[in-house]
Amino acid sequence: MNMNDIIGKKRDGGKLSPEEIEYVVNGYTEGSIPDYQMSALLMAIYLKQMDKEETFHLTRAMKYSGDVIDLSQIEGIKVDKHSTGGVGDKTTLVVAPLAAACGVPIAKMSGRGLGFTGGTVDKMESIPGFQTSIPAESFMEQVNRIGLSVIGQTAHIAPADKKIYALRDVTATVGNMSLIASSIMSKKLASGSDAIVLDVKCGDGAFMESFEDACTLGEMMVEIGTADRKKTIAIITDMNQPLGQAVGNSLEVIEAIDTLKGRGPGDITELSLILAGIMIYAGDKAESRQQGYDMAKEALESGGALNKLAEFIQGQGGDPAVIKDYSLFPQHTCTQEIVCHRSGYVYKIAAKSIGLASQHSGAGRATKEDSIDLSAGIYLHKKVGDTVAEGDVLAVIYGTDAEKVARSAEEAEKAFVFSKEKPKKEELIKKIIL
Amino acid sequence: MNMNDIIGKKRDGGKLSPEEIEYVVNGYTEGSIPDYQMSALLMAIYLKQMDKEETFHLTRAMKYSGDVIDLSQIEGIKVDKHSTGGVGDKTTLVVAPLAAACGVPIAKMSGRGLGFTGGTVDKMESIPGFQTSIPAESFMEQVNRIGLSVIGQTAHIAPADKKIYALRDVTATVGNMSLIASSIMSKKLASGSDAIVLDVKCGDGAFMESFEDACTLGEMMVEIGTADRKKTIAIITDMNQPLGQAVGNSLEVIEAIDTLKGRGPGDITELSLILAGIMIYAGDKAESRQQGYDMAKEALESGGALNKLAEFIQGQGGDPAVIKDYSLFPQHTCTQEIVCHRSGYVYKIAAKSIGLASQHSGAGRATKEDSIDLSAGIYLHKKVGDTVAEGDVLAVIYGTDAEKVARSAEEAEKAFVFSKEKPKKEELIKKIIL
Repeated sequence: MNMNDIIGKKRDGGKLSPEEIEYVVNGYTEGSIPDYQMSALLMAIYLKQMDKEETFHLTRAMKYSGDVIDLSQIEGIKVDKHSTGGVGDKTTLVVAPLAAACGVPIAKMSGRGLGFTGGTVDKMESIPGFQTSIPAESFMEQVNRIGLSVIGQTAHIAPADKKIYALRDVTATVGNMSLIASSIMSKKLASGSDAIVLDVKCGDGAFMESFEDACTLGEMMVEIGTADRKKTIAIITDMNQPLGQAVGNSLEVIEAIDTLKGRGPGDITELSLILAGIMIYAGDKAESRQQGYDMAKEALESGGALNKLAEFIQGQGGDPAVIKDYSLFPQHTCTQEIVCHRSGYVYKIAAKSIGLASQHSGAGRATKEDSIDLSAGIYLHKKVGDTVAEGDVLAVIYGTDAEKVARSAEEAEKAFVFSKEKPKKEELIKKIIL
Repeated sequence: MNMNDIIGKKRDGGKLSPEEIEYVVNGYTEGSIPDYQMSALLMAIYLKQMDKEETFHLTRAMKYSGDVIDLSQIEGIKVDKHSTGGVGDKTTLVVAPLAAACGVPIAKMSGRGLGFTGGTVDKMESIPGFQTSIPAESFMEQVNRIGLSVIGQTAHIAPADKKIYALRDVTATVGNMSLIASSIMSKKLASGSDAIVLDVKCGDGAFMESFEDACTLGEMMVEIGTADRKKTIAIITDMNQPLGQAVGNSLEVIEAIDTLKGRGPGDITELSLILAGIMIYAGDKAESRQQGYDMAKEALESGGALNKLAEFIQGQGGDPAVIKDYSLFPQHTCTQEIVCHRSGYVYKIAAKSIGLASQHSGAGRATKEDSIDLSAGIYLHKKVGDTVAEGDVLAVIYGTDAEKVARSAEEAEKAFVFSKEKPKKEELIKKIIL
């Protein structure tokens, strides 16, 4: 096989064979195919598309480019959950204890944040003592013992995806459905769970801005997962404003704890119950999504999920006292309020701007090497549809660097759009793809 | 400016500004833009096209990426001639003396052969003593003195094109009209002549297989040249079989000399007179192409052009005695005949196969570093439309390595296709674009 011929085939709209796709992925991963040929192929794929079969084989080739985790030591149907990334999305911290409390084993690998989206691993590390790098044996033992463990993703999961993604990022070839779907699914399929629940975010704060695109991506991923014999369900959810009120690492963990205490924001609570319900159903612990939802709700109201969170924190070396005493979290040393200069309704809060503002406050990274301020972030006091008057506090920026906090406030202020009329409420859950 | 944004713009079908094109060409030439970004952009250009304005600015940027030759020391309107490359195309060796004999100053830079097409510089070097690397001063002095000099292209002409072409060659992005036209024209425009005559080959032995594509390319190049204020004329000519009978370096020089003696093959003679006529017209030495043609014919018949060739050879250190004594050329030591096994007509001689066969005989290079056998090549005893009988010699392979000659014969034999009916004659000159 010859890379130049493969590029030419895709350039002319041809269909790549499983062998050709494997040749490309393996050759690129091991370095025999250079970046400049891969980027030409990626652009040809971007413009000429891949069909379902090609996308599936691309996913498989990337899945098998590194370790494929064997979770067979863990009893039961392991269910994974993945979000395509949003601002203020702390649902994993709520959903995992909810599902685990209902008997679904959760053995999850999570990533760190980059750019304007946060990562679950960073958020958990704001809990004093919490370890996200633990040996595989301890990880599986913990899932068998308490039903839940979350660790950082190792470098050996789908290394092809890692290398291809880095190249896409600098060659304007990120936004292609097949490339996005295969990138996400290769990692999920290599992570070893039996079922996968995908939360596809949709809106101007998400990677998929339109509902149609989000559906296409969701359907593609469900097809890939199903073809690889994993029960896969996708849910399309709104990301036209940040989820909940807190954005930033410790701020989001606190909000997640509040949610498990039954006093979280409505959107986080509802989305978490729905996602947990689907996971419980996918894990065969409920006969329907509705039954799963009801079980999750019971786990929330009984305090069972909150107890599961405490066990989880303790299991990974963290101090469960944080659940009662939020002052144990890393503390900010400076704040800045964003004050409203008019009256009416909040019409829009651009999630991307809030994400960027959070990054600027110190909560996020511009490059992988940056360190982050776990205390930093934004707390939204007003959300879309709320009435506002002059002088109201719209949001507060937290951090430990006054200059960064000021820069963040400047960015966050731009996120707010107001109206005289009350805006139409966006549906939080837009579609479920089974 | 940001390369990722520029790639994205072209990927989405946008039009690149002159500044963006300059940024890309300069950045890539000096190395600040990496290969992998350039190849993604090239694929986007391939699939989304460039319009006339973008193509012109790309050509200009590549032209100015290196030296732009100043030929103002040479009196008169300097006329350059370029062929898009064919098999057995030795017309430069005939046309240049014809035009020079009619008073058109020819100060030409030529290339070496690669793959199945030959290069004028290699052909000329088969003349004992002939120098193609001579100082700029001597080059210009010779044109002023005898009206004609041909030298090898230096590395400083359009280095951007050189680097971009090498990348296109390994990323399946060669066959795009804008990229082809700008590649050819950037070098021609940097070479300093006042007028350019382009011989666009068309047929299965040429880069442009269809007549339509050849016309598109010809028109594009004429527009670029005209926009850069050079008188530019393109002629579309047939390359469905090799030109003339000889393919290979010294074999082609001998055929060119024969042509200037008035006993060359009809196709070479006719094409040379037409091209020379256009050059004489473009150089303002004739009032029409027909008058130019008549002047060229007179130079051929009077022996004036043959004398010009002798002066040219002597001027560049070569031995003009080769004109009378062909045994002074590098001599082959082995031959192999290709014999006909049926009777009827020669229906087709695949020019590309003959080109490859010539390369295999030792006359061509597979890579730039290969050395070549100046005596090697193929002489066609039958051409399309000729009658053949069993036992007729179709062609003879020449060389100094019996193994190579045998391999060449095997390839050359595949080129011949026969028919019972006499095939329709292809027009040699298909179109002239002014």
